[in-house]
Amino acid sequence: MLAPQTVGILGGMGPAAGADFVRLFVDACARLLRAHGQVVGDQAFPEHWLAQVPVPDRSGALESSESGAHQPLEPMLQALGRLAALGSRAVAIACNTAHAWHGTLQARFPQVEVLHVAREVSAHLAAQGVRGAALMATEGTYRVGLYAQAMADAGIACHLPRDEERRLLMRGIYDGVKAGDMGLARSCFSGVALQLAQRHGPVAIVMGCTEIPLGLQGAAGTEGLALLDPAQVLASALAARAYRGAPGHPP
Amino acid sequence: MLAPQTVGILGGMGPAAGADFVRLFVDACARLLRAHGQVVGDQAFPEHWLAQVPVPDRSGALESSESGAHQPLEPMLQALGRLAALGSRAVAIACNTAHAWHGTLQARFPQVEVLHVAREVSAHLAAQGVRGAALMATEGTYRVGLYAQAMADAGIACHLPRDEERRLLMRGIYDGVKAGDMGLARSCFSGVALQLAQRHGPVAIVMGCTEIPLGLQGAAGTEGLALLDPAQVLASALAARAYRGAPGHPP
Repeated sequence: MLAPQTVGILGGMGPAAGADFVRLFVDACARLLRAHGQVVGDQAFPEHWLAQVPVPDRSGALESSESGAHQPLEPMLQALGRLAALGSRAVAIACNTAHAWHGTLQARFPQVEVLHVAREVSAHLAAQGVRGAALMATEGTYRVGLYAQAMADAGIACHLPRDEERRLLMRGIYDGVKAGDMGLARSCFSGVALQLAQRHGPVAIVMGCTEIPLGLQGAAGTEGLALLDPAQVLASALAARAYRGAPGHPP
Repeated sequence: MLAPQTVGILGGMGPAAGADFVRLFVDACARLLRAHGQVVGDQAFPEHWLAQVPVPDRSGALESSESGAHQPLEPMLQALGRLAALGSRAVAIACNTAHAWHGTLQARFPQVEVLHVAREVSAHLAAQGVRGAALMATEGTYRVGLYAQAMADAGIACHLPRDEERRLLMRGIYDGVKAGDMGLARSCFSGVALQLAQRHGPVAIVMGCTEIPLGLQGAAGTEGLALLDPAQVLASALAARAYRGAPGHPP
């Protein structure tokens, strides 16, 4: 019997988001198994490895121009190499900002498919006929135009928050989720989400930093928003790669 | 600066429990950092690796006497060896029943400390002055007396469910959580938990299978029970091992 392929998750950025990504991946695998009429049980899941390694701050490195931009790269390259050595055929990076280094990571390990979160999200939105989306993200992600580029390629308008809203997002990410203060995170994130919805109408709101869904969970007033979690899209994409070619699954 | 040590998590049994164990471990690390007045941030967490590998059913193997008992061992040994090669100084196994093979796993990799969930739980209960506990677990765990032995060594009486209750637990574990039917899991688990509480009074109820806490979450009527999640105790123990000897932490 052809088994699903081994896949990897490059995490630690932050560790809570990495842990949550594994949960999303396991859920996505179970959904995929059910959709193909397969029995869901321990042995039906693909082998997968999660690397949670300390990586210098991504937004900080992108801010300090050339001098700092290599800092997060080394530990990510090392962890990716080890995930490749463990047999991973595809790897997802559980951090949006880290995708600023996606090109280098992919080029260094051509034998592994390194998924790209913004391209997966853009393809997902385009497939649903979405033409515009607002982006909640880190300064680093805005700076490198990660989603703006991928969305433009897919014909989707990308609406960005204002400067003071960006500062609120960074506060919610760093002083909120990363520091374990979920109340602060919730108030920062929900404020910005509601302002974006008010300004741009019923567009999709992309929670383009893995810490944002963790902090926005159950925030009052956000029930009606079209919030999209890129980690969920990326986890589904990774599950699809793991089962590609397995019996009962599409090639 | 002395960094925390790399640790590993041996999971996949089942994968949802493995994912949840990483969440518990990250939470435990954050609590430990805070308790020692350290700043919680991405780079303060220990490097950790999660191996989610397909392992043949543990209870099934223990049932079929000698002939089947080696089946889960090989993939666990292989994954543990890889976690050791990745630099793990301590490893937690995110499956109670799998601890039936703890002795062999530990003997084969003496350079790694393989934590023992039942011993950690017994020490935790004894430290709180608990003298009796009821055990919800798999047939495999009952068969090898995993908790009975560890609790006896710690001077704690171990109350076991009746045959029909054990069957309900197995149903909730296999047809419930492992198959993704959380409603079924909830009704099986809560029924047994309430019966144990009625029969043995206000004793601790040990949820001695990683699938049980996942299925018992938010079950009606269980709010007043003294439910103990061994995964939480084990995750805290692993976090303590990771920070042992790090600056600001006990040696």
